[in-house]
Amino acid sequence: MTTESTLALARFVAYTKPHEMTERVRREAKRAILNWLGCAIGASHHDTVERAIAALAPFAGPPQATVLGRHERFDIFHAALLNGMTSHTFDFDDTHLRTIIHPTGPVASALLALAEHTPVSGDAFIHAFVLGTEVECRIGNAVYPSHYDVGWHITGTAGVFGAAAAVGRLLGLTEQQLVWALGIAATQASGLREMFGSMCKPLHVGLAARNGLQAALLAKQDFTSAAQPIEGRRGFANVLATERDLSKITDRLGETWELEANSYKPFACGVVVHPAIDGCLQLRTEEGLAAASIEVIELRVHPLVLELTGKKAPRTGLEGKFSVYHSAAVAIIDGAAGPAQYSDAHVADPAVIALRDRVRATVDPALSEDAAHIRIRLSDGRIHERFVAHALGSIENPMSDGDLEAKFRGLCAPILSEDATQAIIAACRRFDTSTDAGALARLTVSQHRTADATAARA
Amino acid sequence: MTTESTLALARFVAYTKPHEMTERVRREAKRAILNWLGCAIGASHHDTVERAIAALAPFAGPPQATVLGRHERFDIFHAALLNGMTSHTFDFDDTHLRTIIHPTGPVASALLALAEHTPVSGDAFIHAFVLGTEVECRIGNAVYPSHYDVGWHITGTAGVFGAAAAVGRLLGLTEQQLVWALGIAATQASGLREMFGSMCKPLHVGLAARNGLQAALLAKQDFTSAAQPIEGRRGFANVLATERDLSKITDRLGETWELEANSYKPFACGVVVHPAIDGCLQLRTEEGLAAASIEVIELRVHPLVLELTGKKAPRTGLEGKFSVYHSAAVAIIDGAAGPAQYSDAHVADPAVIALRDRVRATVDPALSEDAAHIRIRLSDGRIHERFVAHALGSIENPMSDGDLEAKFRGLCAPILSEDATQAIIAACRRFDTSTDAGALARLTVSQHRTADATAARA
Repeated sequence: MTTESTLALARFVAYTKPHEMTERVRREAKRAILNWLGCAIGASHHDTVERAIAALAPFAGPPQATVLGRHERFDIFHAALLNGMTSHTFDFDDTHLRTIIHPTGPVASALLALAEHTPVSGDAFIHAFVLGTEVECRIGNAVYPSHYDVGWHITGTAGVFGAAAAVGRLLGLTEQQLVWALGIAATQASGLREMFGSMCKPLHVGLAARNGLQAALLAKQDFTSAAQPIEGRRGFANVLATERDLSKITDRLGETWELEANSYKPFACGVVVHPAIDGCLQLRTEEGLAAASIEVIELRVHPLVLELTGKKAPRTGLEGKFSVYHSAAVAIIDGAAGPAQYSDAHVADPAVIALRDRVRATVDPALSEDAAHIRIRLSDGRIHERFVAHALGSIENPMSDGDLEAKFRGLCAPILSEDATQAIIAACRRFDTSTDAGALARLTVSQHRTADATAARA
Repeated sequence: MTTESTLALARFVAYTKPHEMTERVRREAKRAILNWLGCAIGASHHDTVERAIAALAPFAGPPQATVLGRHERFDIFHAALLNGMTSHTFDFDDTHLRTIIHPTGPVASALLALAEHTPVSGDAFIHAFVLGTEVECRIGNAVYPSHYDVGWHITGTAGVFGAAAAVGRLLGLTEQQLVWALGIAATQASGLREMFGSMCKPLHVGLAARNGLQAALLAKQDFTSAAQPIEGRRGFANVLATERDLSKITDRLGETWELEANSYKPFACGVVVHPAIDGCLQLRTEEGLAAASIEVIELRVHPLVLELTGKKAPRTGLEGKFSVYHSAAVAIIDGAAGPAQYSDAHVADPAVIALRDRVRATVDPALSEDAAHIRIRLSDGRIHERFVAHALGSIENPMSDGDLEAKFRGLCAPILSEDATQAIIAACRRFDTSTDAGALARLTVSQHRTADATAARA
């Protein structure tokens, strides 16, 4: 078995029939695509993409594909790169919890760019997407955690395989060509964790999308690579990981679907803070709390929360993501913890700082990672408490379709009109019946003016 | 020192003055560029590049830069990729013997593409080239051999830094921007040895050129990466090597030049066979030998020769490169061992096979790797012997300028007219006085017809 990982994946991609997917994975694919689109649109005018476009646009090809949320159209390689990048810029995209791969970015960004150039049905798109994320996550399963511990950003390194596999399916590659495509992907697998905190982190996702797309197109022209690029002696699994279990690539392949274990972030920060935010939001809504009436917010949290997000006085939006104090405060004040709540301006807002300074947090090792206890004492002496056993977005308490649509609307608000936003939600709901999957991209073209877009960059 | 590798390289690239180069390294740069051009032109119609162009051309940008030896012009990214690839397709390019990096391909391919778009003097080009190869080879020195032993194709992984540094210099990047450029390069460093024997091996060189070029252009727009991408805990040297010596990056930086230890292959096969070929060629020329008069060719060679190239009956051109028997036979018959001598047709030629079968080889552990003894017995009983102490192309017996020009003419013969070939040689000789370095690329545009080009693919 272990000598045939690549060939097994190639056959899986080449021969799996659409009806072999479960209804659940098909539904999860549509949810993943909506969530991905929202993240990409939301970050579509961020400095990261502005700088990348300034650098790359003078050399780009024909206007074949959309940069989501913007007016520019570029060749499919640049569109895939830019959309992969924006979809991860807010670190708000989906997470395959077994490997912490963000599975949709590399795969959907490559597929949608191709679909704009080579029309394809929504159903075929979804099928290719499911196969691509399956390849990506299974390769991730085989090398996680040693691969990540060594220092690889696994979304970049596993993502390029997913993009190559998905595009390879849409292009109708043969078994041999799919082996070559996975090999051309393997030999470009890259992305260092050293880059976390810089613009290169989202770039990794864009590169995975573009490089996987190119790998499949090269393989279609019989551009050759190795026979065992994943499992070979000098192949991906041996060179980029200190331990590996290749049976995780092939065991029950075609019977189980990794996308069914995909998760979505309701809040634009690390998942460890989510239980505390969730509890604050619940109390705010149910008790009609206002910041001015609050004397103190007492949090009991898992030890990791203070280890990772114990910053008491964050100075920038990015630092705010590493502050459970800031996060609890904005949840109460704004009733939200989206990208807007982690802007530089918001972190410096005196009202936010005033409440943040009244948040206390203590560690409780008995709590699970997705649990938290919140106790809010008001100036008038009243006390409100809430125990969150499983935060929204966890496997036990997944975001509903309604939650995901609300998140999508929040992400699109600074970029698109409400009508345009609603049209995309509707198109995603019926995406499997679409005769032209690429049309989805063109629905996202920004209708706002430059001034609004500039404001949205913060 | 070890905590500042990246910053030291950035300062070296930003502040070194042209007059700080030695005359010797400046001369070696011109030799390296001529040799690189010849390899790229020679392979300019190989199946590898034909397939890559078929896959990528529909998505390429404006015709900004030349594909060496061809009529097509593409955006600078695709030109850099394709030229890097063709320059390594024959495995006939230069070698930095300390690391077995092929240093010129990634750096010159990126620089020349940019120079066609943003005019620059030959002198500035040479300076940037020397700085880029220095960065590339020093990073290689720091991680070799463990990095290579793990399974990385070091020309791909180190090459991307060289391309980024060289282009960064031409773009006038600041110290901070150069750190970012090296980081954007680091996080794309890739290329697996598993790919050897496939089209991906030369692709690695093209990817290094393109990705390094893009890294520098992104950094110019302040696209950020890490502060210590090479030496950081999750950086290049720790993640991609099991042992490293970062002092090799900084020791005597700016005082010694790695390009002075560069070497060139006179023959289109692995260096271990070169002493035997060299001796056969010498005897052929000096004694006027003809294959028909030869009864037996007896070779005494270093043990590695039979270990690596002991194939007695090669069936393809590629297998011919791994046959000391075929190599000795073509040296006698053709008086050459260039790409033409390693075509499928040549390996199957009955006259070649007839002589090949009269070659005997025995191992002599007392010989050095660049030595061989050749004894040829003729049908009339006469015996000719030759001991090669240092094969042509070794450090002790480098190819002369005349040798390099003859090699260049041989590589260009199937593609360009003699006049065009001579014009390129002349332009390279006076390259440091050129006011427009990019003009060199346009001199290589194929003047032959399709039929000739097709014949040259073999």
